[in-house]
Amino acid sequence: MPVALLVQKFGGTSVGDVDRIRGVADHVARTVHRGNKVVVVVSAMGKTTDDLIRLAHEATDGPAPAREMDMLLTAGERISAALVAMALSDLGVEAESFTGSQAGIITDTDHTRAKILEIRPHRLLEAIESHIVPVVAGFQGVSTERDVTTLGRGGSDTTAVALAARLDADVCEIYTDVSGVFTADPRVVPRARKIPRISFEEMLELAASGGRVLALRSVEAARNFRVPLHVRSSFTWEPGTWVVEEEPSMEQAVVSAIAHDASEVKVTVVGVPDHPGVAARLFRHVAEQGVNVDMIVQNVSLQGHTDISFTAPKADRARALEATRAAAAEVGAVDVILDEGIGRVSLVGAGMKTHPGVTARMFETLAEKGINIEMISTSAIRISCVVRAEVLEDAVQALHEAFELDREVHQ
Amino acid sequence: MPVALLVQKFGGTSVGDVDRIRGVADHVARTVHRGNKVVVVVSAMGKTTDDLIRLAHEATDGPAPAREMDMLLTAGERISAALVAMALSDLGVEAESFTGSQAGIITDTDHTRAKILEIRPHRLLEAIESHIVPVVAGFQGVSTERDVTTLGRGGSDTTAVALAARLDADVCEIYTDVSGVFTADPRVVPRARKIPRISFEEMLELAASGGRVLALRSVEAARNFRVPLHVRSSFTWEPGTWVVEEEPSMEQAVVSAIAHDASEVKVTVVGVPDHPGVAARLFRHVAEQGVNVDMIVQNVSLQGHTDISFTAPKADRARALEATRAAAAEVGAVDVILDEGIGRVSLVGAGMKTHPGVTARMFETLAEKGINIEMISTSAIRISCVVRAEVLEDAVQALHEAFELDREVHQ
Repeated sequence: MPVALLVQKFGGTSVGDVDRIRGVADHVARTVHRGNKVVVVVSAMGKTTDDLIRLAHEATDGPAPAREMDMLLTAGERISAALVAMALSDLGVEAESFTGSQAGIITDTDHTRAKILEIRPHRLLEAIESHIVPVVAGFQGVSTERDVTTLGRGGSDTTAVALAARLDADVCEIYTDVSGVFTADPRVVPRARKIPRISFEEMLELAASGGRVLALRSVEAARNFRVPLHVRSSFTWEPGTWVVEEEPSMEQAVVSAIAHDASEVKVTVVGVPDHPGVAARLFRHVAEQGVNVDMIVQNVSLQGHTDISFTAPKADRARALEATRAAAAEVGAVDVILDEGIGRVSLVGAGMKTHPGVTARMFETLAEKGINIEMISTSAIRISCVVRAEVLEDAVQALHEAFELDREVHQ
Repeated sequence: MPVALLVQKFGGTSVGDVDRIRGVADHVARTVHRGNKVVVVVSAMGKTTDDLIRLAHEATDGPAPAREMDMLLTAGERISAALVAMALSDLGVEAESFTGSQAGIITDTDHTRAKILEIRPHRLLEAIESHIVPVVAGFQGVSTERDVTTLGRGGSDTTAVALAARLDADVCEIYTDVSGVFTADPRVVPRARKIPRISFEEMLELAASGGRVLALRSVEAARNFRVPLHVRSSFTWEPGTWVVEEEPSMEQAVVSAIAHDASEVKVTVVGVPDHPGVAARLFRHVAEQGVNVDMIVQNVSLQGHTDISFTAPKADRARALEATRAAAAEVGAVDVILDEGIGRVSLVGAGMKTHPGVTARMFETLAEKGINIEMISTSAIRISCVVRAEVLEDAVQALHEAFELDREVHQ
């Protein structure tokens, strides 16, 4: 058997306390003893990052400088990396911890949300060569100005995927507190099934539709670099979900999973004069406010006027409303309405491309349950409907059953 | 007034919580607003280091690798440095935190007790030039192998003194939880006085004789590099004790201070054949065990045999005993006795050199109190006596009174 190179990333709950850290070391040691080479990437222990952020808030009245926040927060991953390396040595597996800087992770200077520009992994390669397991502090790098930087949300996943790509690893294993990607949120649908295998495209749509297992950014990175991901649980250690390139051979489930998201609001601009360039001006205003617009729907025109609705994260609602009101006044719209009571349910499946009628079946299913559809958006492999928040979970359950997602998967 | 460059070092209690950190920032800001340039050096917050050490013990059964301990522990100073820099910015004082590596502190590869080989302060100088206050994480450096190292006990003091020397600072201020150097431990002698001014040599003898205010190593560094030290309290902010070169002009107190130390044991080798080279062999054995021998006394010889006693730190007693027993057998000594019930009281004063009779007065004072002297050792500016541990504090109090150390100082 050829030696495989694995990147194993452990999230905050996986290294939440010393016992878990010993468990992680034990699992890494087993992987090594099976003849694999392993590079470990760790997040900060459990609530460490939150505690450090609280300290920063207490130490300052105004906002803390981004450079200093990065210096502060990166201490968390240093601690967990050192502890994991110690626990490995304790098991007789030679290991050394590396900061982002020591691991050669070079970023831009955009503190608290830096982008990786380049990876110079010679120290990691030296370690692997000498049969030393590198334990890399995730979420961090060093900027072209030689300052400590952090990669922002999902940062440790990004570190792991980027390292896996740069080191040409056979797989990037993402260990978390769930045992994989499910056909729906098991808290909402008890009969939801773990998906053994899913394509990057489907995983992207799921991540973008409210699936919380993987950060959108790291899935994109994995797809771009063709790094197979294996999402699994550090609590059960059982096989999880493989996120891989779609193989032509793969028989495609019509619908792979159902995602739902109750974290958005709907903004409607009423009575917009219906002539060219109006929508453009509206959304330029919104974009300038840095609001992430998701779905956009424009009603058919009546007497030269139309309504335009869009959804945006709850966190952005103030800025979205401000920008929209300004634009509405400018283009002479009648009114702007904010709706905080919405939820979104999405069907995701590569098979949709070749199976018409999925949309119809989705609408019928919701109609049978008396659930009204307020907005619709589709992609080649996704259909999303906005419904009232209070019926969101009913919609997820009804669709999970209608598309028989609790049945054994055909692959 | 010419601009002064100050290095201000704040110990663990001085940055023990967020309120203290804000207090430190306020003090640094005042110093800057008075027109000074400041370089700040910080220890880890309060008990952070102890907590991290505990985590390491819990994560491993065996001893943790030194390299990983250093990676782990240096996180503590990073956190406090970032928080102090934030608090300074919050007061409108531009500040940036620097790790030991970023501050250019290059050490050897002796993890957990590394020695500083060189300081390359160009980033600190750039910051000072741009009116940015550098906040340096103390106690740490980067090795010639590019690994993170720590400087061992008193490490942050060493960082501060070394930086002050390299940057040619006008003074190195050491902020701690006591308001200076006292004529005796105020817990033992309530009337003990703060010493406004003391010479490096006296401070060295005090540090070596059990004074806990400054680490011996950092006083040595300060003397070697002629860096004036100002030891003061971050609780009262009042002027403390200046540790400076002895000026010929300085009228010298006969006795400056009384130190005591109950942290040693006495080892006596009984019936040692009294011929050349025997003592040499004995102490070579002890030295090979890495035991720090302090006082050595050899009795007058009787019938060609003598007794040799020495003191060593309690922590080294097992190794000291083992080495001594081996040596004793080798040289044909009769017995080895360990005495754990001793204490040492020392008189320190530059004036002793020119004032005979100090020794006599010391012995008389102890005799009047019925305190038996078991060992004696002297230097040009120090006299130390070993007495029973239970009468150690009586001895300190009697001597403090006999030498009138509670009177106003003559300088």
